[in-house]
Amino acid sequence: MEAFTDGVFAIAATLLILEITVDTSHTNDLGSALLHLWPSYLAYVTSFMTIGIIWMNHHTCVETIVKVDRVFLFLNLLLLMTVSFLPFPTRLVAHYLQRPGEQTAVYAYGATFVVMSIIYNAWWRYASSGCRLIGENVPESRVKAITQAFNPGVPIYALTLLVAVFSPLASVFLTFAIAAFYLPSAALFER
Amino acid sequence: MEAFTDGVFAIAATLLILEITVDTSHTNDLGSALLHLWPSYLAYVTSFMTIGIIWMNHHTCVETIVKVDRVFLFLNLLLLMTVSFLPFPTRLVAHYLQRPGEQTAVYAYGATFVVMSIIYNAWWRYASSGCRLIGENVPESRVKAITQAFNPGVPIYALTLLVAVFSPLASVFLTFAIAAFYLPSAALFER
Amino acid sequence: MEAFTDGVFAIAATLLILEITVDTSHTNDLGSALLHLWPSYLAYVTSFMTIGIIWMNHHTCVETIVKVDRVFLFLNLLLLMTVSFLPFPTRLVAHYLQRPGEQTAVYAYGATFVVMSIIYNAWWRYASSGCRLIGENVPESRVKAITQAFNPGVPIYALTLLVAVFSPLASVFLTFAIAAFYLPSAALFER
Amino acid sequence: MEAFTDGVFAIAATLLILEITVDTSHTNDLGSALLHLWPSYLAYVTSFMTIGIIWMNHHTCVETIVKVDRVFLFLNLLLLMTVSFLPFPTRLVAHYLQRPGEQTAVYAYGATFVVMSIIYNAWWRYASSGCRLIGENVPESRVKAITQAFNPGVPIYALTLLVAVFSPLASVFLTFAIAAFYLPSAALFER
Repeated sequence: MEAFTDGVFAIAATLLILEITVDTSHTNDLGSALLHLWPSYLAYVTSFMTIGIIWMNHHTCVETIVKVDRVFLFLNLLLLMTVSFLPFPTRLVAHYLQRPGEQTAVYAYGATFVVMSIIYNAWWRYASSGCRLIGENVPESRVKAITQAFNPGVPIYALTLLVAVFSPLASVFLTFAIAAFYLPSAALFER
Repeated sequence: MEAFTDGVFAIAATLLILEITVDTSHTNDLGSALLHLWPSYLAYVTSFMTIGIIWMNHHTCVETIVKVDRVFLFLNLLLLMTVSFLPFPTRLVAHYLQRPGEQTAVYAYGATFVVMSIIYNAWWRYASSGCRLIGENVPESRVKAITQAFNPGVPIYALTLLVAVFSPLASVFLTFAIAAFYLPSAALFER
Repeated sequence: MEAFTDGVFAIAATLLILEITVDTSHTNDLGSALLHLWPSYLAYVTSFMTIGIIWMNHHTCVETIVKVDRVFLFLNLLLLMTVSFLPFPTRLVAHYLQRPGEQTAVYAYGATFVVMSIIYNAWWRYASSGCRLIGENVPESRVKAITQAFNPGVPIYALTLLVAVFSPLASVFLTFAIAAFYLPSAALFER
Repeated sequence: MEAFTDGVFAIAATLLILEITVDTSHTNDLGSALLHLWPSYLAYVTSFMTIGIIWMNHHTCVETIVKVDRVFLFLNLLLLMTVSFLPFPTRLVAHYLQRPGEQTAVYAYGATFVVMSIIYNAWWRYASSGCRLIGENVPESRVKAITQAFNPGVPIYALTLLVAVFSPLASVFLTFAIAAFYLPSAALFER
């Protein structure tokens, strides 16, 4: 499971760059065209860092797991399917932010993260509830710490959806901020 | 063989998202354009889940195998070539479902799955017949159980082709249903 | 070295499918458009099988090698760079075969294989000459057998270039035939 | 960390080929179109070799490291994000070199390498300063040798940016020359 999962994470992260395209048909000034691409860079960095965090946390969780069953593998595949899907809403944000349709694009982006965090939570809660798939030698405090780190996931991404109602741009910046602040705590796990 | 095989499965699954493109040249309403993309989402989910299942079953089979020979490696490469090919008919279904040409697109999609299941069956039957490549410590009942799980593959995908004669849409939904129902039994293997 | 090398082989093989595109702007008949794509399928299968063979032989060679040095790693990187390049001439053959420009496309395709087989030969000859990087416990006969399998590589791909002067189509079929005939002998290695 | 890192390096290197596209809409002569693509080949080879060198050096560094912490993992993710970004400026150089806008394209290319070498230096300096993450059995001379190899990185890529002010083409050739000369020393590490 690890090799396929690692592969999907790495490929989804690397494919993000293909979604950034520069259109100079309306201008001959490449420099100004590149500067106007800042929504693309923002979307690229936000999605890349979020995939990086999910991948790091995924490893931390898997370290505590000693067996798998059919439901768990199914949830893992659903999670990978959502991660693989991320380049599509990332492209929408890259192309539509600051243009007509930006609200729809950011809704799609936020909704993908909400679905992802719901599946990710379900994946971990299935494994950890009653220590169903957790190794016997894993201290209960460690499992609890991971569960607590999962708790804010769904509400915080739901908040980005709510923010998008008022300001799509603020919503994307919030998603970026979540990734930037979550990253150290994700790395903290790894210790 | 495992590293290359895992890589091809993971990459083929992740590349699927590149086949989903949104065209807003006829409309300025991104929301409605995204809703009209539902054939793309259906094709994406169906192909992703099917690759996931084939990959899970592949691992289960390989666990029982202790040696390889030239024919087996050739069949494995043919299988990978078909899996890698899948993004192409997936794109056809994503673009043509509910449009002129949908029947041809779904024929191509279904035919790819029929070819894939024929090669996959040949791959396993070559390895398992007379326990040619199977480890001595693998119980015969396990080999038989795997073989029985392979049996419905070719007929069921042939059925999706037949259904496409009457309704291309129903054929794609059937392919999705096969993946959704096969997934738990694939995971069952893994135990 | 192995993980990066395996990754590049698997990704290059899987990216090939992105080079197949269907253009229905001149016709509303998807079926006929798909049939006219046969040069694309031929190019896809030929390139995929050739990458598969190179990858299989690469593993066989690496098994006999116990140390690496700077020249060897440089040659390995050159080999990977050529393998990664293959999707580009494959796309040329897919788009131009049976159309104006087909001869140039097939020259580019054949030349890529000639360069690839020259680098691949240099890579192995550097490692094997005087058993520079070969393990002490590897029988000399095994090294000789591998070297003999490498011998026809450059001349045979040079021949496909020569054939392209008279018939581009025959040249691509010859390249396909080389892959199809070489594959069993590649697998033979693996035993 | 290694599997994800290796994956991102291999995928970023292999995706580079997708940035080379041939446009024959202005001419029916494919041969001349392919010859005029030489900036694309130059950009492809330069970026591929640079990724290869960074990857080889990354492995050499990681071999001396026995533990990781949150800052190190964050810097590693930043490095991967920059490596993954490389296909984008590579495409700019491939499309704009020898055309209007070439200076901007080469600035973007050079700036990416400057940022990459700054992050790469920070990554290694964080790990090595006071032997923070280095294994106890790693000789100090080895750490020093690696640090010395890192030293010219930032200034030399800053130089390519400066050269681009006078000649974008010369700047790209210099970047290629850096890769070509650095490669043997990168391989030297590996011993």
